[in-house]
Amino acid sequence: MVRRNASGEECGDDHRSDQTASMQEEAFKNTEVPHWRNQLTFRAIAVSFGLSLVFNVIVCKLNLTTGVIPSLNVAAGLLGYALIKSWTAISEKCGFLKQPFTRQENTVVQTCVVASSGIAFSSGTASYLLGMSKTIAAQADAGNTPNNVKALSLGWIMGYLFLVSFVGLFTIVPLRKMMILKYKLTYPSGTATAYLINSFHTPKGAKQAKKQVHSLFKWSGASFAWACFQWFWTAADNCGFTSFPTFGLKAYAKKFYFDFSATYIGVGMICPYMVNISLLIGGILSWGIMWPAIEAKKGDWYKADLPASSLHGIQGYRVFIAISMMLGDGLFHVVYMLTSTIISFAKKQASSEASEADDNLDQQRRKEYFLKDQIPNAVAVGGYLGLALLSIIVVPHIFPQLKWYHIAVAYLIAPVLAFCNAYGCGLSDWSLASNYGKLAILIFSSWVGLNDGGVLAGLASCGLMMSIVSTASDLMQDFKTGYLTLSSPRAMFFSQILGTAMGCFITPLVFWIFYKAFSVGDPEGSYPAPYGLMYRGIALLGVEGFSSLPKNCLNLAIGFFIAAIVINIIVELLRKFETKYRLYRFIPSPMCMAIPFYLGAYFAIDMCVGSLILFIWELKDKKEARAYAPAVASGMICGDSLWGIPAAILALAGLKPPVCMRFLSAAANARVDKLLGS
Amino acid sequence: MVRRNASGEECGDDHRSDQTASMQEEAFKNTEVPHWRNQLTFRAIAVSFGLSLVFNVIVCKLNLTTGVIPSLNVAAGLLGYALIKSWTAISEKCGFLKQPFTRQENTVVQTCVVASSGIAFSSGTASYLLGMSKTIAAQADAGNTPNNVKALSLGWIMGYLFLVSFVGLFTIVPLRKMMILKYKLTYPSGTATAYLINSFHTPKGAKQAKKQVHSLFKWSGASFAWACFQWFWTAADNCGFTSFPTFGLKAYAKKFYFDFSATYIGVGMICPYMVNISLLIGGILSWGIMWPAIEAKKGDWYKADLPASSLHGIQGYRVFIAISMMLGDGLFHVVYMLTSTIISFAKKQASSEASEADDNLDQQRRKEYFLKDQIPNAVAVGGYLGLALLSIIVVPHIFPQLKWYHIAVAYLIAPVLAFCNAYGCGLSDWSLASNYGKLAILIFSSWVGLNDGGVLAGLASCGLMMSIVSTASDLMQDFKTGYLTLSSPRAMFFSQILGTAMGCFITPLVFWIFYKAFSVGDPEGSYPAPYGLMYRGIALLGVEGFSSLPKNCLNLAIGFFIAAIVINIIVELLRKFETKYRLYRFIPSPMCMAIPFYLGAYFAIDMCVGSLILFIWELKDKKEARAYAPAVASGMICGDSLWGIPAAILALAGLKPPVCMRFLSAAANARVDKLLGS
Repeated sequence: MVRRNASGEECGDDHRSDQTASMQEEAFKNTEVPHWRNQLTFRAIAVSFGLSLVFNVIVCKLNLTTGVIPSLNVAAGLLGYALIKSWTAISEKCGFLKQPFTRQENTVVQTCVVASSGIAFSSGTASYLLGMSKTIAAQADAGNTPNNVKALSLGWIMGYLFLVSFVGLFTIVPLRKMMILKYKLTYPSGTATAYLINSFHTPKGAKQAKKQVHSLFKWSGASFAWACFQWFWTAADNCGFTSFPTFGLKAYAKKFYFDFSATYIGVGMICPYMVNISLLIGGILSWGIMWPAIEAKKGDWYKADLPASSLHGIQGYRVFIAISMMLGDGLFHVVYMLTSTIISFAKKQASSEASEADDNLDQQRRKEYFLKDQIPNAVAVGGYLGLALLSIIVVPHIFPQLKWYHIAVAYLIAPVLAFCNAYGCGLSDWSLASNYGKLAILIFSSWVGLNDGGVLAGLASCGLMMSIVSTASDLMQDFKTGYLTLSSPRAMFFSQILGTAMGCFITPLVFWIFYKAFSVGDPEGSYPAPYGLMYRGIALLGVEGFSSLPKNCLNLAIGFFIAAIVINIIVELLRKFETKYRLYRFIPSPMCMAIPFYLGAYFAIDMCVGSLILFIWELKDKKEARAYAPAVASGMICGDSLWGIPAAILALAGLKPPVCMRFLSAAANARVDKLLGS
Repeated sequence: MVRRNASGEECGDDHRSDQTASMQEEAFKNTEVPHWRNQLTFRAIAVSFGLSLVFNVIVCKLNLTTGVIPSLNVAAGLLGYALIKSWTAISEKCGFLKQPFTRQENTVVQTCVVASSGIAFSSGTASYLLGMSKTIAAQADAGNTPNNVKALSLGWIMGYLFLVSFVGLFTIVPLRKMMILKYKLTYPSGTATAYLINSFHTPKGAKQAKKQVHSLFKWSGASFAWACFQWFWTAADNCGFTSFPTFGLKAYAKKFYFDFSATYIGVGMICPYMVNISLLIGGILSWGIMWPAIEAKKGDWYKADLPASSLHGIQGYRVFIAISMMLGDGLFHVVYMLTSTIISFAKKQASSEASEADDNLDQQRRKEYFLKDQIPNAVAVGGYLGLALLSIIVVPHIFPQLKWYHIAVAYLIAPVLAFCNAYGCGLSDWSLASNYGKLAILIFSSWVGLNDGGVLAGLASCGLMMSIVSTASDLMQDFKTGYLTLSSPRAMFFSQILGTAMGCFITPLVFWIFYKAFSVGDPEGSYPAPYGLMYRGIALLGVEGFSSLPKNCLNLAIGFFIAAIVINIIVELLRKFETKYRLYRFIPSPMCMAIPFYLGAYFAIDMCVGSLILFIWELKDKKEARAYAPAVASGMICGDSLWGIPAAILALAGLKPPVCMRFLSAAANARVDKLLGS
């Protein structure tokens, strides 16, 4: 579930999965593999549903705050294991236990949760869907016309998601055998998850898993309590710990502060050091240097009387420079990935027969189970064509701006891109779904044009494209996991369908609660949802060209676009030719640097605190840190995010926190004293 | 250094010293005991001076905030050990080491620090001396006449302390052999300290001491950093974490809140559970129930238009009910102690010869060194008479309200009380010095009378009395420590003289910094120094009788006076006759309950948090908690208190914190928004 995409996020596992432990199946040789129907148990589905809900809340909250989403695989694996383990323990005590807990069942839960929380991400509730709304449209000025705006409503969002989300599933089925058996792609995240699950089901692994679960729950409780405590002091928007001017009021005005968020400390502990540092560098570069310099030109470069959120003012520079940097980074990776995919593909094609022979015992056994329960190719092709046809008929009813031929074209290109993405992801663990989505926005919005609702058409087609491409790579990772845990592909496929259905149902509901309870999309509020405006900005570029940008914004954007590509080229060159110090590790990522351009550095500071904690922990006890840091971090994220639910309910019920913890300069405080004294 | 006295504090060690380890000297049989002059090294004096400074700051800050002072013996022992150990380690590396570090030297440092920080307490800078000042006199209305007020100034305070503090030293010298060799009194704190010092100088003990020192420094650093961080948000009096309305604004108005003070969390970890709970019960009883009930009678029981701090209003109830409860408790203990002293004395007298014979090897060796370097009784008697004469001549020049015969009478009674206190403390570890001081106030203030400056006379005589009585018990504890560590009594005596001199010099200076930098004695400020007004209140009772009290205050005060005695009687009866469940442990202490009557429950909440932390720690790992909790707690106290120095310097330099972290109700916040928005 590693993504470097729509959400700009690039927090993956560190891929430390120990590939040398080649004879893993030895430990399981006396364990029977259940029939595929028995892998899909009721308890697995129930647990999956519960976890889907939890992860949807987490992903939704992260999406709406900064859009940086860490890999929650470890948390999903641990929680799935813990829940089913306790379920079976309780059933056993009551004498109801019919079937023991197997690693195949565990894989099914994992797959289902990944599929459903994948929807939380690819559904674009914080990116392209939000970009259609009035709130965001009003901030972007241009394109704020009736046929370029669509009021969000639970009904059509859910319908649209059900329409577009299942198509991707059918694209990957025929590719499955090729990618995993023939080309033996690594899929690092999928492999790591499989090793995690396999280890849970050996005695030693179970013991450590228990301890990890314990620390996950402990930290989850602590961070929930902390979030709850914070709530009481947040009577208004600029109150509470999230407005703590840690480095002084002047730094706070420039969005440099530590906001005591357990979530982002946890996210920082999971993300690689360089990601956090890149974010911080981006924050300093933009809010520390560039924006103050541009604001000094106020009245010259842009009109002085614009509202703060107008894209024609300072906000325009922030959004479009960030977009150009992300597009530059994305373009580089798409081209790079396509090239290396073609090269590697050609090589594999030539050498694939040679490797057949040297399968070891593990591989033979895995292959046997992987080929046991087939899904006919006819089902796959039929499913794809059927669903595509349905989309072509129904989607234009939801978005009249999109005609049937637009959708047909999208469904013609999509499988090719899905294949590329799944293949590339198998090699590098990078999914580029959001980049393909952004390309789709540019293509379809300029094709339809502003007057015919091109903005909306672009955003809607982004959903189509992203959904297929993202599903393809995510679920291929899962098949790899299934392959390594001897899970039945048929059970996996049904689990994916189920997970997708859960996602299509839960994601809009969770989003809707947040959307109704808080002012989502307000750049000054707690839920700025940065990608909403970004994605709309891309669509505006598609329909309007560069004419709408404020003065010098284009030049700056081009500069950053080129810089992003250059930085990536330097990284790749260093990676290839400078192997001694591996300096490429110390070059910041342009994608990461671009996020704080819009948001400010505050969450980067939280994340760097997380890095610092991890760093000190690793200094003190590297082994312990490796084993428990992901659990602790996941706990911090889970607890804090889960508080979002009661907080939303309180907000919906109209219950406001009683006290405002406020930060005033000494002078302002004297004035307040006078006011309240009188 | 256990005290249950002026500062109402009764936080002792738990006396867990393992008395079964009877053959301690075995470990040291090959270690030479240095000559007494070599026990008093330069490095010991230098380290003592440094530590005296640190402990003076800590005690002064604690005195001025709540007056609850925990036993800092462990901290003093650990720090003394750590400093001299590093000193010798450095000298050794440089090749300068002439003499190894011995436990006798360690004892000398301990004694000197105890003597000097004893002054910080018995000097009454936060009680009787402060009670003479204009600030406190103004709060008490009655007795606010020129001859009952004395402006504090560094000169006369230091002179007065030098006059009265040394007398006590000479009273104990002749008693030394009787108390320790003849009656073999236990002196639990002194014994515990000796075991600590002995253990440091065995290899295993040294290792643990090193770890303890490490955690002391770590927590000291953390709490210093936390205090420093807090400073920035405290632009005015009602700002910052110390004004955090943890349980809501209404509870805050009634002084129920957790104020994030590392000091009092640490104090709570050192004090026994029951002390903290007693404080909390007292806080709830007074600020939760009684004061609101009395305030409802405003206009009936007392005039409605009085200033908040007037002793004729609600503040009077707070002060006098607290005083009566403390006096009741004190009276009970004085009487109880005198009775049991006499009984025990009579018994010992009869049986003392019998025990001579069964001295074991340890005791023989200790006795030998204890009798080696004598201090002639003639020196003791001469010293006492000489110093008393000097006081009789000089003190009336400082306080014209006190005549020579008043002082002569005080010096006649004092040795008797000093003997009682030293003997009682040897049995129970309880020093009643402050209670004798309070009695002195009552006696001398009513003797002199209001018109002749009785308030001031009472307070000044309190100093005389308390100093002698407190020194006697403190230093006898030290002699016990010296006896158990084979330290020379002569070295101890000089160390005590030196420590006392340091105390007389450092204490007024430290107090002066706080006094000039902060508004000490302001009941709403950060340094309310509760005992200042309390002690003045006692003096007012002495000169005015009960006529000055507001309506029904006398009845309530009598009720609480009796309640305190009754509670104590119940405890003693239970202790004697109910040995199964030992229920007496669960009865709150009246002395402790009285402190929050004036101050409110906030510090009791901090201390209960400390108790909770200790409780959980003991649940998880009892051994670790026992070994490290005192070090951690001491670290928290040290670091936080030491921040007092830079804070005072910043305040003196006129540098104010930049930001006010303020807590406003939602309604007030809306008004503030309007004000600042416009």
